[in-house]
Parts: sequence; structure tokens; C-alpha cells
Amino acid sequence: MSDIHKPSRRAVLAGGAAIAATSAAASGPDPLITEVQDWAQITGEGVDATPYGLPIEFEEDVIRRNVEWLTADTISSINFTPIHALDGTITPQGCAFERHHSGAIELKKEDYRLMINGMVDQPLIFTYADLERFPRENHVYFCECAANSGMEWAGAQLNGAQFTHGMIHNMEYTGVSLRTLLNEAGIKPEAKWIYVEGADASSNGRSIPMDKALDDVLIAFKANGEALRKEHGYPVRLVVPGWEGNMWVKWLRRIEVTDMPVESREETSKYTDTLANGISRKWTWTMDAKSVVTSPSPQSPIKHGPGPLVVTGLAWSGNGAIKRVDVSIDGGANWTTARLAQPGQKMAMTRFYLDIDWDGSEMFLQSRAIDDTGYVQPTKTQLREVRGLNSVYHNNAIQTWWVRDTGEAENVEVS
Amino acid sequence: MSDIHKPSRRAVLAGGAAIAATSAAASGPDPLITEVQDWAQITGEGVDATPYGLPIEFEEDVIRRNVEWLTADTISSINFTPIHALDGTITPQGCAFERHHSGAIELKKEDYRLMINGMVDQPLIFTYADLERFPRENHVYFCECAANSGMEWAGAQLNGAQFTHGMIHNMEYTGVSLRTLLNEAGIKPEAKWIYVEGADASSNGRSIPMDKALDDVLIAFKANGEALRKEHGYPVRLVVPGWEGNMWVKWLRRIEVTDMPVESREETSKYTDTLANGISRKWTWTMDAKSVVTSPSPQSPIKHGPGPLVVTGLAWSGNGAIKRVDVSIDGGANWTTARLAQPGQKMAMTRFYLDIDWDGSEMFLQSRAIDDTGYVQPTKTQLREVRGLNSVYHNNAIQTWWVRDTGEAENVEVS
Repeated sequence: MSDIHKPSRRAVLAGGAAIAATSAAASGPDPLITEVQDWAQITGEGVDATPYGLPIEFEEDVIRRNVEWLTADTISSINFTPIHALDGTITPQGCAFERHHSGAIELKKEDYRLMINGMVDQPLIFTYADLERFPRENHVYFCECAANSGMEWAGAQLNGAQFTHGMIHNMEYTGVSLRTLLNEAGIKPEAKWIYVEGADASSNGRSIPMDKALDDVLIAFKANGEALRKEHGYPVRLVVPGWEGNMWVKWLRRIEVTDMPVESREETSKYTDTLANGISRKWTWTMDAKSVVTSPSPQSPIKHGPGPLVVTGLAWSGNGAIKRVDVSIDGGANWTTARLAQPGQKMAMTRFYLDIDWDGSEMFLQSRAIDDTGYVQPTKTQLREVRGLNSVYHNNAIQTWWVRDTGEAENVEVS
Repeated sequence: MSDIHKPSRRAVLAGGAAIAATSAAASGPDPLITEVQDWAQITGEGVDATPYGLPIEFEEDVIRRNVEWLTADTISSINFTPIHALDGTITPQGCAFERHHSGAIELKKEDYRLMINGMVDQPLIFTYADLERFPRENHVYFCECAANSGMEWAGAQLNGAQFTHGMIHNMEYTGVSLRTLLNEAGIKPEAKWIYVEGADASSNGRSIPMDKALDDVLIAFKANGEALRKEHGYPVRLVVPGWEGNMWVKWLRRIEVTDMPVESREETSKYTDTLANGISRKWTWTMDAKSVVTSPSPQSPIKHGPGPLVVTGLAWSGNGAIKRVDVSIDGGANWTTARLAQPGQKMAMTRFYLDIDWDGSEMFLQSRAIDDTGYVQPTKTQLREVRGLNSVYHNNAIQTWWVRDTGEAENVEVS
């Protein structure tokens, strides 16, 4: 196992000099330096070519991907975020994971209606134009599917951070506080819950306790500045900060104010956690603190020899802000505190980096997140001791990548 | 002129109730409420349909637009950000303004080289893979073209925030500190400047003083999490926080360390500010504090009657963080402090909102930004007194939209 060193200026300089020497000597003069290239003498594309731009062709592998055998049909499947290839914290909408229960529907703003009914003083129906007249907020929040990393309960199965941890995205939302709209309708004193449903065929109804509904829930219509994409619930979705993605109802149609939860399909037979004794935990809404190394990882192997190496990943917590992330290269025996690119923000993704001097030998790479409640991300063993092996949801265990001396990486478990 | 009121719950409720009544009574039962719609009984699109998604067809007008007569050719033109239609602060790469001097070139990562030469201990050549081995940072910064609002010097001309203020975008960059790479090469004591140039035919060379080069400049390869788009300099561009966009050299090829500025075309005949007496100011790199109301605005008219109205816009400063934004509805006679969606961040865009109770009469809408240095965004008159009318660049004056009682808006000047 390699020790972790901050790369010294000397170490990095040696790398730089070696590379410069390679260009100039080992492989002869580098034509990319010594010869005038086409792109320096032929003009490029005009601005009229891309009214709305897409990634350059060379990045065509940085896309959402689904796993065919995971669900019966693509209309009820998942398209995973390519987190292994992204950096920073913002997820572009175009490659932000999508999960549907009956496919992504097309709903025009003109056809949009939001009803608030049930235990209210005044049932209300809002058009999209109505929603635009209420005070707006902006917040960056992560949205994680409760089933993210779910395959890991039974052992290391899917080989890549995109598939083990890619049911997550992190975007800047603009919307109206749900509290504002509920106050418009006037909540009756005996009301304790809301039931939210979407306009799609699945309707995907979920109960949310009133405390949360009146706290930080948003009726969102923009993500990363622009309209929600079709697959993210255009024109309006619910944003439920820190809570499982299934509750972030897309194509939001109706909010019923109730005194009891509905106990719908999506909160009884699904999205509950069956323990070893067969009893299922319910109302496990919060996504606990979690992290993953995104690079190096199976889809992002090390392509250079020993020397300076950037280890990077993402951390998040549904209970607050990420306070610290530790990284281990020896399967959890020793830990080094990583550098956070920016201070953690509530219910938003945090990017971490650890700059090491890789000695070229194999590593068992892990990261563990600690949030501002003091909670420490558990190991798989710790989590299984409490929850058994029957669960699909809420696996926030520490992930291990076995990075070989070749730089290739694999999803493994360490005991 | 209308007074500005925070919309009271009663006022907004009246609006909501009126709308609900419209749906239920005035136009008869609303079939969007009373009838089961297709989208609620026919399944939607599967996840395999969009490996990389684009905006929904209904948003096809939210795109970059260029102004044909502005330049001789589209390879040296500008495509403006549709800021009138965006909200929040992040600009998606796909609609972030682009400006080229000889078109957008295609440059593969494998073909990418960055040379640091001149007054250094060790000239270095970096490949893209080399850059990935240095410690990275993440920062959200605005990038504004020096010519943004340039047409306004001669009076109110272009009718829309996209065209008057759309040469700006705000993205989360990931990259390596330029300081790190300069320290790799080792700067000689007599070095005081760097000269940076791009790989495109224009090369777009600019001189940057060493103090800035060693401060916060980034060698960036990602924006909003993913690779830079072709039109934003794929695979590597310079990020020069708070300074004019022309210096954010795209397809960055070479950094020469020098003891004097080069006085290149782009910093003598261009990107200098000619005053009334014919003398040109040079080295006017910083983009001073500025703001604009993005809605309502000429491309985003009010489409409803009197009552609650969200006035919103963007503010930014190249000298630091936005501290406060004031909004006037009477052409600057009276000002009300707007609500900032989040506290201002250094050299990043800030979203502001003012929730008013519009009385339905005409408004002369303005905003003025104040940054944390205490600088207050000037009026056009104040700016012209100092700078005359010869300038093209660095117009950060207060913008006025004349909003008529019909809700339509127009670019005007008030004395």
C-alpha cells in the first residue's frame, strides 16, 4: 500500500519535466508544437450554428445509461447520471438521471393545472401563469433515488460509479415555496399531512408530513436556470430537499391536505425497507450521509504511471451539510481527510479532492462522508448488521474500488 | 405611478380565488380538471429515448440569438444568452453566450498542448492528461463580454434584455489554478506579465499582469460539471474572474511569461475605451458592478392584469460580491431594496426579486447594483459625463424598461 503524500512541488515538477522531455526528445519533435495545425489557420464554426448547443462529439460517451435487465420496460426504468465523468457539483439537466413509473409525458404550460384540495379553507386551482406570480426562491439541492446503490446490498455487482451511485443529480432549482401555496388555500387545524400526485398515468402518489411540507419543499419550474426538461417533470415538479427522489413528484397535478397519510402503493409495497425479520420500516424518507469516489473508478481508470494523482468524488446528506470527507486507499485501515472544493451546503452535493502521490501499487479506494449532525457514513458490514439483506432502498454504505497497479478499477467488497 | 407593496396574503389570495373562479365559473367547467387527459392514461417516453437530453419542444424559443448586422460574419459574431427567459443564476452551457474572433474550432483532447515559456526556469508543455493530474478547484464565476450593453452608449437601441445584456453567462468551473502551473515552470524575478493565446486562427492574445495571474485565474476544463462545449473553448479555456470575457482565452495554447505587456491588437485597437477627447483608456479589465431586470422586459412582457407581479433580474460585479440591489418602478425617483435569492458570491451572478402589487399603470423599471466595495451602479448620464459617447466597451449603466399598462415593455432612456 502506498502512503498518501501531498504532491510536493519537486515531485510534480519532475512529472512536468519528464513530459516536456518526452515531447522534445523521446518521441522526436512534437508536430502539435512545431507545425501549424489546421485549426490555427482555418476559421471555425459561426455562432449561428448552435442556437442551443450540445456536447462536442468527442464527449459522446458522457451520457445517461440504463441497465436493461433492471426493470421490465424502459418506461419504468432508470437512466443513470455519468458521475464518473463529471466534476464540480452541478449536474447538467441533459445527463441528470431520470426514473419514471409510466414514462416521461409531454405536458404544455397552457395545459398545466395544480389543484390544492382537502382540508383547506379554500380549494384552489393554479395555472402555470398563476404560479409565476408568487415569490420565488433559488436553491441547489441533490435528488437521490431511494434505490441508489440498492444492488450493493447483495454484494458488489455493477461495475461503475454511474451504475452504483448514478441515481442522483444536483441542480439549482427555482420555484415557489409550497408553504406559500398552502397558506393561500388556508390549512385547517386538524390537517397533518399532504398527499401529492403527478399528472402521468402512474400518478406516483406520496404522503408528506405537514412539518416538512411547510418547511423547505418547493414547487419548482426551473432547474439550472432554464425550464425543467420533459424527463424531469416539465413544467412543474416537487422538490423535497434531502428526501428520497420518489417524493419529488414530476408533472405535479394535485396536493391534497389530509389528517392521515394515504399509505399508497409507493409508500407500502414500494419504498419501504424490509429488515432481516421480515418487518418493513416505513417513512424512511431522508437520504442519509453518503459519498463515492468518482475518479479513479471502474469507468475512469488511471491512465498514467506512478506520481501525482487526483482522487475525487461527491458527498451529500439529506440531514444537512457535509462537514468532512475522509478517503482511504487501503480499504479503510487508514483515513486521510480530503479537501472540500467549497464548504458543504444544506442538502446539496459537495465535491471533494485528495491529491496523492501514487506509488503505482494497488489501492482499495474508499470515501466516507460526515455531515454537520456528526453522522458518519457506515460500512456495508455495519449497515447489514442493522438492516439485513432484504432491502432495496437506502443503502448509504461506504463503496470500495479496487484499483490495480495497471490503473484499472473494479467494484469489490472488503471485509 | 404605482406604489410598491409587498403583496399581502389577502391580495394574493384574492388573485388565487379569482383564478379558481375563472376556471370553475366564467368559462364553465375546465376539461383539464374534469376530464381524464391522454397523458394520465397513456404511458410516456422510456428512459432510453434521451441518453443526452435537450429542452422540450415548447421551449424552442429559449435559445441563443445573434444580431446579423452587428458583425461582418458569424465567425466573428456573438450569440446572446436568453437571460429574459432564464431564472436562478446558473447558465446552462447550451444557451450560454458565445463570441468568437475566427469561429469555434474543434480540438481533440489528444491533440491538445499547453506551452508555458518565456521568463521561466523551465519551459513546459502540458498535455490534457497532464493537466488532469494537478489539484483542482471549483468556482462559480460570471463571464461578461466587455462590449455587453455597448450599443446603449448611443441610446436605447436593441429591444430586449437578451440583446442589451445577454453577452454574459455564469457557470461552475472546474480547473487547475494558473498559479500552480506557473510555479511548476518557475517564474523569474523580473517577470511581471503573462501573455495568453488561443489555438484558433485569431489566437486572440492578451496580456495579464502577474498579480492577477497568480491570484484567482483558472485553467478550466469543465463548466457546470461537464466538459466545456466546443463553443466555450473545449478542451481548455482560461477563466479570469471578474475581468472582461475577451481575456478568458478559449482553446488555450500558450502562456508566455514576460516583463512587459505585448500591447496586442486585442488590447490596443480593440478593448480600449476612447473618451470624449479622443484619448483611449487601456487596461480596463474589470467589469464594474451592473444589473438588469430580466422580467418583465421587452421579451418577457406582463401577461396578466393588476395584482401580484414578480420583478426579477441579475446583478454582478467584477470587484467582488453583490451586497444589495435596488429596484425603481418610476425611472429612478424612488428605490426599493430587492430580495437577493442567495447572499452574493465573489465574481458570480446574484439573482434578485421584488414582489410587487402592480396597479396596472405604466412603469419605468430600473435596477441598480451595489457591491461589497460600496460601488453603486451609475446612471447612463453619470457614465457619459465621465466617458463620453465614443466607447463600445464597459457600459455598466442602469437600464430602463418602459412597461406600459398593456404589460408590454420597451427599451427606453429616462433623463
